[in-house]
This record gives sequence, C-alpha cells and structure tokens, in this order.
Amino acid sequence: MAYAEAPEGTTAAALFTRNRVVAAPVVVGRGHLQRTAGRLRAVVVNSGNANCANGKDGMRGCQQVCQEMAKLLHVRAQEVIPSSTGIIGVPFPTEKVLAGLPALLADRGDDEAAVERFAEAIMTTDTQPKIASALCGAGKHAGCVLGVAKGSGMIAPNLATMLVYLFTDVQGDSRGLKKALTAACDRSFNCLSVDHDTSTNDTVLLLSSGQSGVRLRAAQKQFTDALTMVCRSLAEQIVSDGEGVRHVARLHIEGARHRSEAMVVAKSIASSMLVKTALTGCDPNWGRILAAVGYSGIAIDPQKVNIYIGPQQVCRKGDVCRYDAAAAHQYLAQPSYDIRVQLGRGRAGIEFLTTDLTEEYVRINAEYST
Amino acid sequence: MAYAEAPEGTTAAALFTRNRVVAAPVVVGRGHLQRTAGRLRAVVVNSGNANCANGKDGMRGCQQVCQEMAKLLHVRAQEVIPSSTGIIGVPFPTEKVLAGLPALLADRGDDEAAVERFAEAIMTTDTQPKIASALCGAGKHAGCVLGVAKGSGMIAPNLATMLVYLFTDVQGDSRGLKKALTAACDRSFNCLSVDHDTSTNDTVLLLSSGQSGVRLRAAQKQFTDALTMVCRSLAEQIVSDGEGVRHVARLHIEGARHRSEAMVVAKSIASSMLVKTALTGCDPNWGRILAAVGYSGIAIDPQKVNIYIGPQQVCRKGDVCRYDAAAAHQYLAQPSYDIRVQLGRGRAGIEFLTTDLTEEYVRINAEYST
Repeated sequence: MAYAEAPEGTTAAALFTRNRVVAAPVVVGRGHLQRTAGRLRAVVVNSGNANCANGKDGMRGCQQVCQEMAKLLHVRAQEVIPSSTGIIGVPFPTEKVLAGLPALLADRGDDEAAVERFAEAIMTTDTQPKIASALCGAGKHAGCVLGVAKGSGMIAPNLATMLVYLFTDVQGDSRGLKKALTAACDRSFNCLSVDHDTSTNDTVLLLSSGQSGVRLRAAQKQFTDALTMVCRSLAEQIVSDGEGVRHVARLHIEGARHRSEAMVVAKSIASSMLVKTALTGCDPNWGRILAAVGYSGIAIDPQKVNIYIGPQQVCRKGDVCRYDAAAAHQYLAQPSYDIRVQLGRGRAGIEFLTTDLTEEYVRINAEYST
Repeated sequence: MAYAEAPEGTTAAALFTRNRVVAAPVVVGRGHLQRTAGRLRAVVVNSGNANCANGKDGMRGCQQVCQEMAKLLHVRAQEVIPSSTGIIGVPFPTEKVLAGLPALLADRGDDEAAVERFAEAIMTTDTQPKIASALCGAGKHAGCVLGVAKGSGMIAPNLATMLVYLFTDVQGDSRGLKKALTAACDRSFNCLSVDHDTSTNDTVLLLSSGQSGVRLRAAQKQFTDALTMVCRSLAEQIVSDGEGVRHVARLHIEGARHRSEAMVVAKSIASSMLVKTALTGCDPNWGRILAAVGYSGIAIDPQKVNIYIGPQQVCRKGDVCRYDAAAAHQYLAQPSYDIRVQLGRGRAGIEFLTTDLTEEYVRINAEYST
C-alpha cells in the first residue's frame, strides 16, 4: 500500500481505463473528482487485489478506505482518490487495508526516499520502481513535474494495468490540467502495448499544488511538453519492464493517411503473436510484419510497403530485397531497437512501443492466480 | 509436395485469405478459377515456402509449376490450382519444385493410403494429418464429401494458414458449390483462433466430380450440412493440433444482439493473451474473461454478464459468485471444454474455438526461421 498527500488548494485531472468493466476504485474516483470539481487532497493505493467485479461489498470497501483515510488526514472523503491493482473477482480485504492506513501515515516523508518508497509500494510484478521528472521553465520561474508509475502486465493502448501519479507545482485549473494530460497520454501511454489487454483499473492522475507560482495559462505548451517527457519516460520504463520482456521495439509507422490509420497498423503489428515471437528469437522475419499490415483492416497496397529493421531495408515495395540477415539478427539481439514500416498512402505517422513475447511471459501469467 | 487430380468435367469453388497481402499461388489460383469459370483438373501443393512477397520471380515460379503440371497431366495450365505454405519472403525454389513433379505423379493412387499420403505431405508444423468425411443422402442416392487439411500456426478467423481441400461426387455448378462452401466455412473455419494472425496463403478449395449422380440442386441443404460437418471436424482437428496447444476451449457466446456482435466478443476473448495463459494454467480466472468482454468494443453492461466454466457459474451479473474453485481447476485440466458467456443483450450467439498459449508455442515460433 501507498499514499500521497497534497496541500489545500490542490487541483487535479485524471484519465481512466476505457474498458466497459471497471473496478470499484475507478467508479469511486471518477465520482469524487466530479463532486469536488477536481479538488483533491490524497491518493491511496493498494496492490494485490484489483477490487473489480466484487459487487456491493467491493464498492463499500473502497468507500470505507476513502472515509478512513479522510478521517486520519482531516479532509473530506471525496477529496481522496483510491486505486487498486491485482487480481479481479476476489473479495476485497477491506479490514486489512483499513488496518494498514495508520502505519502508512506514520511513514510519510517529502524527500526522494519517500518518492522511492511510494514507487516501490505500488509495484505488482514490476521488477523496477518507475520514476521520472522534468522541469517546466527555468530559474525563478521554473515549475516541476514528478511522475511515479507501475505497469508490467495487461499493458495495451488506451491505458493498461497501469497506475500513474503525476505531481506538479505548476498552478492550473482542472480543465487546463486535463487538456495537458490528454495530450501527454496520447503521445505516451496510448502508444504502447505489451499484451494488448486493456485493464479494468488503469488510472493516470495529475495533481497540482500550484506552489511554484508558475501559472499553467502562461505556460500551457511548456507544461505539456514537460508532462509529455515525464509520461514518455514512464511509458518506456513500463514497456521495458513488461512481464518477461527481453526486447522493446519502437515501431515507426509512416506514410499513413492519418494518425488513426497509423495507429491501427501499429496495433496490428504490436499484437501479432507471430511478430512478437519473431522478436523473441531476434529473427528478421519481416514477412510476419507484412502479413500483420495486410490483415490490419486498412486498405494498404502491399506493393507500396517498405520495411526497415534498424538501418537496413528488408522489404521493398512489398517484396523481398537483398539485406545482410546476420547483421539484422545481431541488430535485433539488442534490448531495444527501431522497426520502420512505410505504407505509401500519405504523410501521417506514429511511434509505438511494443515488446517480444517470451516463455517467461507465459509462465508468469499461467501461474499468476492459482 | 502433394497433388490431386480430378476427372474431366470437375467443377470447383474456393475461398481465399482476406489478408491484403496475398501469396503468388492465391493470385494465380484466383485467376485460374475465374478464367475457367470454376472448371479444374488438378491441385498442386508445396510446404516449406509460402511463395509470398517474392515479386515477379515468385509469380513466374508459381505459373511455371502450373504449366509443368498441366503438361504432365495433359490439361491446360489454368485448370491447375497451386497452393504454398511456409515462410514468407524467401525466394521460391522453382527448380526444386518442378523437379519433384514427376515423382509425385508416379506415386498417385485413389485409395485411402493415397489420401493419407496427401494429408501428410501438406503438413508443416502439424503433428497429425487431418482428414474427415461425411455422406450426403443415403443408399443409391448418397454422395460423399472428403476433406483434407493442414493448419497449425497463424490460425485466425477469416481463414488462417490453413489449406483445406474438399472433394465431393455430388454434382453442382461453381455457384451452388460456392454457396455451400461459404455457409460451411462460416460455421467452422471462420469461428476459430489459435494466434489471431491471418495468413497470406489460406485457401479452402471444393472440387466436385459429379460422379455420384446426386444433384446439388436437389440436395442443397443436405450437401451443405455434410460439408459443414466435414469442415467442423477439420476445424477441430486444426485447433487441437495448434502449435503448442494443450487445451481447446469451446467458447459459447450467448445473448448478443446479433451474430456479428457475438463474433466480436468471441474474438476479443479468444485473442486475449491473459485469458489464453489462464487456460494454460487451468486457472478459472474469469476476471480476465470479463475484462476481455469489457474491452471488446461492444457496449456491454457488465452487470448483465454471466460466465460459466463447464457446469459451474463463476460470475453472476458481472460479480463474483460462489463456486468450487478446485472443481473448476480440474475441469480446465481436460484437453477440451466449454466456457459460456452470456451478454444479456439479445438472442444471438456463436460457438468459437480457441486455445491456450503455452511456452511451447513461443518456442516453436521464436525458432521457426533463423
């Protein structure tokens, strides 16, 4: 378990999973944000149980946790945002969570070590804590953005089993924060896939204390850029630490008619089990990539498709072309690398992170609950 | 390599992959069927090389194989249908295939052993030959349907790396045969998924010699039923023999508004890596199924969803319900079983075959080409 506390006057914005099945903390958190019009004071997180599909008991447990936390902090229950991550459909251990709250508070701090403790507490099958920060502006007029995340399994576009907490001292209202958050997520968390499963609990929360004196209105672009940098760093950390992941591929889809078309192609490649297992074997088997482009649903003309593995072109106008297979194999043995697919339909593109599929992924997920 | 020969007057219908990237034999085969208006005399198949993305050389090689086969059989090249299965983007070994044709012919036969040889010759990573047959009608007026298939990897709806050859002595024109074939495929090959990758080479071919004297027009329903039975048997054989597969799940999606909606939900569950790895571990982790229903894109109401694992209900109205987890675990240890998902939206449904995802699948596909 972990918690974060924010000073009075803190504003917030959040994005939640797009899965139609949502966990109790997502329902409760959405409600709290609406009722307070984005004014928050605390976040409380548990891992091990997703508190999803637990019926009324799950909802009640989640609300009790917020109430108890509020009492301890002398704030209102609706100023507390709850998060849970873990298994779905197992009764939520309300009493155990309630009993753990006082110790959490006793352990609080505002230094780097406290941030690390927070990052470590929210881990599930993560092997590394995930932290990133960036400055917005310079000198006296600098604000900062700090981000902490957990990821690992069930990672797919439109948020994944991913909990992300972003903290800033740049002063903005909930609306301005939401705008920056949406833009940053579109360029980071919504462009990655480990296993193409969208979780029921995903939450990205941005809290602004406003204490730097820097105003969001005067620095919307700089703030969005700083926030995007932090989100991108966290996204890369999440993907690299995906369950059983040994290789991260940055897919560059180019020459699409529009961004959404590039996204469809990227997702088709990123979720192909045959592409993913080729990456596992460091195998420059571009035919599997071409096949995934072909069944993406976009009306591509195969004779206009080029594929590059790193610096080498491996497919020209949909056909095999001469390349050094040994060098390509060696290139794909690196922990992360670039694969470029040109569709020859237009000028739009996207960058998308994906991973290989290893025996270890299967082992972790076949053994996770029983 | 394998080949099948048909008597003069044979009519045919075929369905090919819906991937936009198609192999040379699919292009050539489609053309031949069109030009002869569905009159065929032979099929020639090679495994090991898909002859896909091989440019003009691949097309030329494929045409040469048809020409040489036609010469040996004294028929026209356009009366020969070619098929290839194997790796994409590796130059087609035309000379090697041409050199093998005379030996194929020398080895021909019309008995069961010959059918088995055909079934074995087209295998790639298949571990079992796949054969099925059914009668259409009874007594003097019985026709028969014989089917041979290969499957194994890259298996997804809308045809997979799946080559299926169906032979019948029921007499019908190409149009009537196509109608029956489409109906049979919709209830068999289009309702299964091993790894959700649609191949570039899939072909289902139906040849009718007409020699039984039974006329399709007088028996369209009986014939479609017999053909569907054969296709369903082959589909089950293909899925059971999927790469690394240890468990086959028959998904029954019920209570959808229409069949296509049930199909979307079935595919979402069937291609979830988290559901598939739960099946690997015989784990009644129905939360992963519910989550996959939730992100399928269909606007389901989670509070109307029921899930059954075999005889036991494990989720009632979107929430956890009491069930015997040990019994469910034992049930899922069987090689094949039923999982039922009720959406509570309407009266349509679908039955869909899927499999677990094992470490062996990863091993096979990570080591396939390099």
